[in-house]
Amino acid sequence: MASSAAKVFQPMAQTFYETHAPLLQKAQEAILKRTYWSAYPEMPSGKIYGETAKVDAETTFKNYLGKSFDLKQPSTKTVGAEESPYGFPLNITYPSADIDTLIKASAAACKTWGQASIEERAGVALEILSRINKQSFLMANAVMHTSGQAFMMAFQAGGPHAQDRGLEAIAYAVSEMQRVPLTARWEKVTGKDQTTVLDKTFRLIPRGISVIIGCATFPTWNSYSALFASMVTGNTVIVKPHPGAILPLAITVKIARDVLAEAGFDPNVVLLAPDTADAPITKELVQREEVKIVDFTGSPMFGKWLRDNLRDKQLYTEEAGVNSVVIDSTDNFKGMTSNIAFSLALYTGQMCTAPQNIFVPRGGIDTPEGKKSFDDIGEAIKTSLDKLLGDNDRAAAILGAVQNQATVKRAFDAKTRGKVVRDGSAIVIPGMEMARTMTPLLLAVDAKDKDKYDEECFGPVAFLIATDDTAESIKLASTGARERGAITASLYSTREDVIEKASDAFADAGAALSINLTGHIYVNQSAAFSDYHVSGANPAGNASLTDAAFVANRFRTVTIRRQQ
Amino acid sequence: MASSAAKVFQPMAQTFYETHAPLLQKAQEAILKRTYWSAYPEMPSGKIYGETAKVDAETTFKNYLGKSFDLKQPSTKTVGAEESPYGFPLNITYPSADIDTLIKASAAACKTWGQASIEERAGVALEILSRINKQSFLMANAVMHTSGQAFMMAFQAGGPHAQDRGLEAIAYAVSEMQRVPLTARWEKVTGKDQTTVLDKTFRLIPRGISVIIGCATFPTWNSYSALFASMVTGNTVIVKPHPGAILPLAITVKIARDVLAEAGFDPNVVLLAPDTADAPITKELVQREEVKIVDFTGSPMFGKWLRDNLRDKQLYTEEAGVNSVVIDSTDNFKGMTSNIAFSLALYTGQMCTAPQNIFVPRGGIDTPEGKKSFDDIGEAIKTSLDKLLGDNDRAAAILGAVQNQATVKRAFDAKTRGKVVRDGSAIVIPGMEMARTMTPLLLAVDAKDKDKYDEECFGPVAFLIATDDTAESIKLASTGARERGAITASLYSTREDVIEKASDAFADAGAALSINLTGHIYVNQSAAFSDYHVSGANPAGNASLTDAAFVANRFRTVTIRRQQ
Repeated sequence: MASSAAKVFQPMAQTFYETHAPLLQKAQEAILKRTYWSAYPEMPSGKIYGETAKVDAETTFKNYLGKSFDLKQPSTKTVGAEESPYGFPLNITYPSADIDTLIKASAAACKTWGQASIEERAGVALEILSRINKQSFLMANAVMHTSGQAFMMAFQAGGPHAQDRGLEAIAYAVSEMQRVPLTARWEKVTGKDQTTVLDKTFRLIPRGISVIIGCATFPTWNSYSALFASMVTGNTVIVKPHPGAILPLAITVKIARDVLAEAGFDPNVVLLAPDTADAPITKELVQREEVKIVDFTGSPMFGKWLRDNLRDKQLYTEEAGVNSVVIDSTDNFKGMTSNIAFSLALYTGQMCTAPQNIFVPRGGIDTPEGKKSFDDIGEAIKTSLDKLLGDNDRAAAILGAVQNQATVKRAFDAKTRGKVVRDGSAIVIPGMEMARTMTPLLLAVDAKDKDKYDEECFGPVAFLIATDDTAESIKLASTGARERGAITASLYSTREDVIEKASDAFADAGAALSINLTGHIYVNQSAAFSDYHVSGANPAGNASLTDAAFVANRFRTVTIRRQQ
Repeated sequence: MASSAAKVFQPMAQTFYETHAPLLQKAQEAILKRTYWSAYPEMPSGKIYGETAKVDAETTFKNYLGKSFDLKQPSTKTVGAEESPYGFPLNITYPSADIDTLIKASAAACKTWGQASIEERAGVALEILSRINKQSFLMANAVMHTSGQAFMMAFQAGGPHAQDRGLEAIAYAVSEMQRVPLTARWEKVTGKDQTTVLDKTFRLIPRGISVIIGCATFPTWNSYSALFASMVTGNTVIVKPHPGAILPLAITVKIARDVLAEAGFDPNVVLLAPDTADAPITKELVQREEVKIVDFTGSPMFGKWLRDNLRDKQLYTEEAGVNSVVIDSTDNFKGMTSNIAFSLALYTGQMCTAPQNIFVPRGGIDTPEGKKSFDDIGEAIKTSLDKLLGDNDRAAAILGAVQNQATVKRAFDAKTRGKVVRDGSAIVIPGMEMARTMTPLLLAVDAKDKDKYDEECFGPVAFLIATDDTAESIKLASTGARERGAITASLYSTREDVIEKASDAFADAGAALSINLTGHIYVNQSAAFSDYHVSGANPAGNASLTDAAFVANRFRTVTIRRQQ
């Protein structure tokens, strides 16, 4: 890697870079191949993370409770009112500064950070990720008790999978910046026996301050791409966590600030801006002129506000949509219904990638066991769900808890929308009896009753929708994706012509399609370095994790040319 | 180049691709090196373009005059009221359709075009450029008699240099698309002795309809990057020319439609949407929901309207700014003043890259001939201008004509803003006595009188501004760039510390800096494949010609994954 014309030189940052350069190179290769690759081990194993890591993390987490979280950053007061969905308040408070103070500190830090070399910034970012990885068990506790995810998911999605997304963003950002040569000698014949020589240097400059608006369900996974993309391209970052899920990002910011300081940079390159539901600061913060980039994961309502109100800023959103399953036919009926049941149950349907609408021909489908009716399919998914969630321990490990009380209410209110195929109900998590839980509600409706199913009903609610035939199923599902947004779609079919038609329809609608998933991979799952998460081509979001477009506009190039 | 999963196959498009692939490859290499490279010869030579090319082009141009321009595209009426700045009406009319018709035709064409392979689309685009290149003499006439550029500039900037910008955009777009693999086999161990295999395909989909809003001064140069970037990424394009400069883009669109039809595509992939100053259609057109990308070159006033009113669309702008020269010291006084004089005179200051504000210490500067006072410098630039423009033929070849009467009025009105160092006046162009012309007006002002010089005064007006010292010059010039926008900046200094300070200040302000130009390269010139035109980092525009960010968000990627 060529060294950029750095105005600062921090030997420790360079050392970090040299330590992690081989990993970065692998990541840069992975994004071009998009086969399976992962940098951070997803198994919560003592062999990998240290035999005492699990217990140490629990102790650390418990020590955080009821105390003030020490971030050593500018602050004028403290805030914090997180509640674990497992039924207890965290009682952690965080330093909070007024917006002027945050903006001033961030802008001041940007001066040096923006002039550091690509390697220095990448080195710092990679070291941050490496240290976050070592704290994956701690992060699992923090994510579990803010998002409500079960431990295993909190470890994987909140830990290594989020870290992979962060590394992926670093790889894209470094690759795009490396494509700009640092210098070029430009020689042109400008007259008889006359050549003009201009020596050019190309300076990469950041946009300025980047604000990341975190969400409550995947506080790290949905933030790390933006955090590391913005940092590596020279911007400073203000992380505005969801008031219900501050801790995972506070730990992240603390580690980032430690590494920045060790490397000789102003730790205010990364700042936390926690707020409360009663006194939200996001609108004021993102409208500040100094804020040039905003990354948002959250509701379409707030997404629309951002899209309507932010001027002359880069805005990257993941909002929401209605994901569909189209069932046409299958050569593995049990595999299909089990896979769908798991998809609905996983984290109580609170994934942006979880299916909601299951389209089935009212005349039934072909399977190896012969024709299965619409009712048979509903019954089989119900049976799979009942079996999967019949054991309380297993149910707890799959469902986790419900992040927000409003989600439970929404699901209860939805019961009148169709014929109840399977009712949703609370489960009891052993040892955590106060946890807010609910199993999936499955309702049968007719395709013509669009008002019942054609909007997002976030949480453990799914609709089995009777259509005339698969052509109608594809049309309804893909039209819904195009008009109201969808991140994923799923198809079960043994017929190549149906697969082709569905592929065309969902690709045109910008929804990632999974075909014939009957095993241990689910439509909900999106793998870093392989799956593009959100296409940016329908209302579910305007950006993708991660493609070149996600990073290329976070920096600018300025030419300096000098006649020789 | 890997072949994409094309849904259509057009053998002729593939043939075009094979013909031009070696050129494309060179262009793809050039954008990574950014040394001098050009694809299309800039000399208006019969040896290159054909011995009869010049005469043939004049005949063709004259045959256009007073007639209806045949585009063979959907139309409901005709429009056209272009006037040559050289003093005669073109009396050409163009087919015009209502907006519904245009949108419908464009959307219909997008279906197949969006599904063509990268190679097919690149092949068509490269063939279009190749045919446009062959018509460079015709384009010179068309650009000359709409923009008012002198013949040589109209040939070069309107022809080969614009074509280079188009090729550059194709190279960026193809490179970014090629980085997405078409297929990937994803294999993951998902259980004991169990591996899950997903075969993935990645489909590149276009955004939809792209509208390009052309300008009157550089109708082709400022449109081709967007035209070819949008086309190659699968979007269809509606070209909305400036009412005063339709012909160059009508010729472009005609060639594009011919090639598209020959290749078997719907020619409506590229449509012309001419209008008149009395009945502008731009606002209605760009606000149509089907329009997903808008490229604009023009005034900050209309740029602001676009930035305020376009929601959920990709908007790329080049607006305007105030470009500065900072004079600190020089080792070539005559070279410096001649170079500055030429910069001011070229195309009567109507280039977005032309300098306006020349900052000079009021105590004078060091030169090899000793100290030169503020007045000496003004006098020397005046003398250079007088010499350069003393001969009418040479003056005409450099100045060309003034595109818009308002520019002349603005320059006349500016005379009261400072002490007149050199007055601007009309010249007579032999054989074209009715041409609208003006030589540069040079005014001396004091730095403290900011209201005199601190906004754009588009056209042949420059200010010589007396400052306390070079530090103040740099501060005023770079602050102006940051706050009101600037595309270029120029510095003359023999002192390395000054060069470094100015480099930092202008890079931070997002203005491309040229240092010590004393020969035949001018600050106004921006070379494709080497100079980034507009940084996108100050109010002069939000995009750059051309970087990855200019192309990467014009397409999206959708994943289709299938369990094996």
